[in-house]
Amino acid sequence: MSSADLTGELFLAGDRRDGGSSALLHSHDPRSGERLEPGYRAAAPEDIAAACAAAAESFASYRAVPVERRAEFLRRIAEEIEGDASRIIARGVTETGLPEARLKGEVGRTAGQLRLFADLIVDGRPADVRIDHADESGPELRSQTVGIGPVAVFAASNFPLAFSVAGGDTASALAAGCPVVVKAHEAHLGVSELVAAAVVRAVRASDVPAGVFSMVVGEGREVGQALVKDEHIRAVGFTGSQAVGLAIVASAAERTEPIPVYAEMSSVNPCFVLSHALEQRAEEIASAFVDSLTLGAGQFCTNPGLLVLPKGAAADRFIAAASERLRASPPQTMLSARIHRSFEEDVAARASHSDLTTLVGPTMEKTGGPHEASGSLFATDAALFLRRPELQNEVFGPSGVVVQCDSEAELESVATALSGQLTASLHADPGDEAMVRRLLPRIESVVGRLIFNAWPTGVRVCDAMVHGGPFPATSAPGTTSVGARAIDRFLRPVSYQGFPGWALPDVLRDEHVVAWPRRVDGDNLVP
Amino acid sequence: MSSADLTGELFLAGDRRDGGSSALLHSHDPRSGERLEPGYRAAAPEDIAAACAAAAESFASYRAVPVERRAEFLRRIAEEIEGDASRIIARGVTETGLPEARLKGEVGRTAGQLRLFADLIVDGRPADVRIDHADESGPELRSQTVGIGPVAVFAASNFPLAFSVAGGDTASALAAGCPVVVKAHEAHLGVSELVAAAVVRAVRASDVPAGVFSMVVGEGREVGQALVKDEHIRAVGFTGSQAVGLAIVASAAERTEPIPVYAEMSSVNPCFVLSHALEQRAEEIASAFVDSLTLGAGQFCTNPGLLVLPKGAAADRFIAAASERLRASPPQTMLSARIHRSFEEDVAARASHSDLTTLVGPTMEKTGGPHEASGSLFATDAALFLRRPELQNEVFGPSGVVVQCDSEAELESVATALSGQLTASLHADPGDEAMVRRLLPRIESVVGRLIFNAWPTGVRVCDAMVHGGPFPATSAPGTTSVGARAIDRFLRPVSYQGFPGWALPDVLRDEHVVAWPRRVDGDNLVP
Repeated sequence: MSSADLTGELFLAGDRRDGGSSALLHSHDPRSGERLEPGYRAAAPEDIAAACAAAAESFASYRAVPVERRAEFLRRIAEEIEGDASRIIARGVTETGLPEARLKGEVGRTAGQLRLFADLIVDGRPADVRIDHADESGPELRSQTVGIGPVAVFAASNFPLAFSVAGGDTASALAAGCPVVVKAHEAHLGVSELVAAAVVRAVRASDVPAGVFSMVVGEGREVGQALVKDEHIRAVGFTGSQAVGLAIVASAAERTEPIPVYAEMSSVNPCFVLSHALEQRAEEIASAFVDSLTLGAGQFCTNPGLLVLPKGAAADRFIAAASERLRASPPQTMLSARIHRSFEEDVAARASHSDLTTLVGPTMEKTGGPHEASGSLFATDAALFLRRPELQNEVFGPSGVVVQCDSEAELESVATALSGQLTASLHADPGDEAMVRRLLPRIESVVGRLIFNAWPTGVRVCDAMVHGGPFPATSAPGTTSVGARAIDRFLRPVSYQGFPGWALPDVLRDEHVVAWPRRVDGDNLVP
Repeated sequence: MSSADLTGELFLAGDRRDGGSSALLHSHDPRSGERLEPGYRAAAPEDIAAACAAAAESFASYRAVPVERRAEFLRRIAEEIEGDASRIIARGVTETGLPEARLKGEVGRTAGQLRLFADLIVDGRPADVRIDHADESGPELRSQTVGIGPVAVFAASNFPLAFSVAGGDTASALAAGCPVVVKAHEAHLGVSELVAAAVVRAVRASDVPAGVFSMVVGEGREVGQALVKDEHIRAVGFTGSQAVGLAIVASAAERTEPIPVYAEMSSVNPCFVLSHALEQRAEEIASAFVDSLTLGAGQFCTNPGLLVLPKGAAADRFIAAASERLRASPPQTMLSARIHRSFEEDVAARASHSDLTTLVGPTMEKTGGPHEASGSLFATDAALFLRRPELQNEVFGPSGVVVQCDSEAELESVATALSGQLTASLHADPGDEAMVRRLLPRIESVVGRLIFNAWPTGVRVCDAMVHGGPFPATSAPGTTSVGARAIDRFLRPVSYQGFPGWALPDVLRDEHVVAWPRRVDGDNLVP
C-alpha cells in the first residue's frame, strides 16, 4: 500500500488531529530497517487531557445506549475492519514483518472478538441480573452491572490487530459501556491509524457519542503516564513487558483515586513432560515443542520458554531431536529493532550463564534483514534451576530452557517453585496418572490455563478461556484479557432498592429480565 | 461476663499464643471510659509472618476441600458463634456500648452471612463453570474459579461481629477457599477473642487445616503494614476510615507483587427529597431522616449525612421538623474514645464553618458517660456546597448537612458534583417523575446502591445487594463487601484445556457440572 493513504494524525473523539508535541514517531519495516512514512506527532499533555475529558463526557450518554445498539456498534467496527482488510494487512506486513496469512488470521480474530462481545451483551450474562423480592429480611433489591467509566488501553506490539487498537481490551471495554482512549503501539502506527479510522467510521454510522473512542500516539513514559494519571480514567488495560506493566501499575498507584490496572506481562509457560510420555514420544514431543517455541518468531505471551522433564536416555533423545529441529528452523524477522535487540541481549546472557549449557546457540548469520532471530535452546539441572530465580525470567523470542530433573520429587519441586504463569502444560501418557495428580494442584495454583498434551501457543477466544494468572503473569489474577470474562474487568455492580417499575433501568424491569439469565430469590433462571 | 473467660492471646493457626511485642492493648468500656481486662500483647513481626506462612501452607490443602465440606465448616462457625452468643453479646455491650438487641441482631446477621456463603458455594454459581467443547475454533476448554490465596482481613469497629473477625470478609474469603489472617479491631478485643475461639473450634470440628484462620492484634501502622506487605497475602479486605483505607492501599502499592485491596471507606449517602414529596410529606420525611441519621449513634457507613432539597416553604417545614426531632433525640454513647473525639472535632469544624448555618448544634451536656454524642444538623445553599468539596467529607456520627437548592438545575448540579458513594436515596411522589428520570443517570454513575423512598441505613444481605461504589466510597468499585457477590473478590478463574475426565478437578467433570449453573458452548444452563 501507499503511505499516501495515511495522514499521520491522532484521533481525538472522532476528529483527526496532529499531535501537539514536537516529537515525531515513525514505524519501521523490520525486514529492512527502513523508516516508514508518515511520521506521527506524539500527543501533547493537552491532547491526552482532551481525549480523556471527551471520554468522560461521552460516558453518560454511551452507558445509556441499549445493549442491542451497542452490539450493533461493535459489529459495525468488525465490518469496517474487514472492509479495509487488504490495506490493513498490506501495511501490517510492512510494519511488523509478520506473514500475510498471520495478519489475515488476526483480522478474523479481531472481528470475531468484537462479535463475541456483541453477542455476549445481548445474551445478558455479563449484566449479572439479580432480584431479591421484599421479604421479612428486607426490601426489594434489583442489581445489574454497569460500565466502570473511561478505560485507557495500551496496545501490544505482537498482535497488531487482536491486542491493539480495536483488540480484546477495546472490544470488551466498549461492550461494557466504557469509552476507550487507546495508546497506539509505535511499532505499527500505520495499522493503528487504519484501524482507528475504521472504529471512527463505526462510531459515526452507529450514532454513538464521538468521545467513546480516541487514539493517541507517543512515548510510553510521557504519554502513557499522563493517560494513566488522568482523573477521568477508571481502569487500564495493558499487554506487554513486565517492566512497562509495572511502571503503569506504579503510575496508577500515584493517583489519589485507586484504579484497577489489568496488565498482562510475562510468562515462561512451563511444559512438563512426564516419564511415560517422554519414553513413548520423545521425538514427537520435541518436534512439536520446537514448532511452538519458534511460532511467530517466539513472540507470543504463551511461548513455551521452559520445558521440564526427567533426566535419562529419553531426555537425551528429546534433547537431540529438539536441537536438530531447532537448528533446521529458519531465522525469522522480529517485530521491531527494539524487540530484536532485547532478544539478542537476553540470549547472550543465557549463553554466558554459568548454570546453563548451550544446546543450540544463536546463529549470527543473517539470511535476510537486520532483525532476524534464530532460535536457541539451553539446558540446566533442576537443582541449579531452583537456586536461580532469574532462569524463570521471560525471554521474548524463540529461546527455550530445558530443565532436567533427577527424580519425580525434584520435578514437583520445580512446579512448586514457579512464579505466576499464563499457562502450564502437561505431557502425559498411560502410566503418568499418579504424577499428573501430584503436579496438578501445584500447577493450578500458579497459572491461568492448564493444558494437557498440547502446547500453549494458540489462544481460543471463547467463554471458558482464561488468559491471565498470578503475578508476574498479570497484575490482576482475578481476570482474563481474552475470552468472554474479559468484559467483567470493566463492569461494576449497581443495586436498585425499592424502585417502582417506571423508574428502573430497562434491563431491570420484569418484562426485560426474563430475556436474560438471572438469579431471582436465590434461584438461577435462564430464558 | 467475667473477663476471666478471656486469655488476651492471639490465635496463630489454631494455637493461642501471646503476642510477641511489648505493646499491651486494652479495650475500654465507652460508657464509663473504664479500661477492660485482659490486656492483649500486640503481634510481633514474627507473629504476622508465622500466621501468613501458615495460611499459605494451608492454602494447598484447603482449596482442595470439596465445597460441601467447606460449606459445613462455614455452618459450623455460625453454630459455634450462636452457641456462645450470650458471652459474646455481654462482652460486646461492655466493649462497644451498643445495646444488647443490636448485638443480638448482629450475631444473627453474622451467622446468616456464613450460611449464605455456605449455600452459595454448594449452589455452584460462584464457580462460574464454563465449558466450550472442541470445534473448528479450537480445543476443549473447561473453566471454573478457585481461591486467590491467603486474605488479610481488617476488622471494623462499628460492626463488632458482622464486619469483624468472622464477618462478611472472613466468611466470603473462607467460602472462596482462601485462608484468612484477621487483624482484630482494638475497640472490641474481647469479642474478637471469643469469636476467634469459635472459628478455631469450627476448624477443628470440620477437619480443615489449622492455618486457614489466624487472628492478630496490634496497632494498625505496624501490624497492619506488616500484614499487607507479607509476601503470602494475595488480597486485603478492609472496612473503616478513608485515611486508614488509603494507607493500606499505599502499603499494598509498595509490594513487588500487586494485590487487590478491597477497602470500604467513606460515604455521606446523599438523600434527595424532590419537590412533590417534600410538599406532601415534609414532616414525615424529616422525622424518618433524623431516625436514620441518629440510628446507632450515626456510626454506620450508610449513615445519611447529606440531605438535598429544593428551597422554599416546604423546605422550611422540613428543617423545622427535623431540627425539633433531632433536639428531642437522646445523646448516645459512641463506640470508642477515638471515634468520639474525631466526631467532636468534626462537628466543631462544621459549627465554625463560614458556609454552614447551624440548625441544631451539639449539646455539651452529658447525661451519661464521657463518650456520649448528641446529634447536630447544619444547612447550606447549593451554590456554597458546590464551591466547597470539604462539605462532602464524611463525619462519622450523628451529624447531617441539609443542602438547599434554588432550582431543579441546581439540584442536578449537586448530584453531578458528588464524589463516589455507597448509596444515594431519592424521595419522590407523583409529580416528581421527570426529576427522578433526570437525576437517576447522574446518581447511578457515582453510587453502588440507589434507594427509592427509603433510607440507606439497613443493609440486606442477599444476592442483589451492592455495598460498594466508586472512590472514595471504596478502593475497588467493581466489587461489594456485603451480599453474595462479595465472594467474587477472592476468586480467580482457571481454565483446563484438553484434559481427560480423570485428570479434571471434580467440579469440572461432566457428572458434576450438571448440578451447577453453567455455560456450555454459549448456552446458559441451570440444574
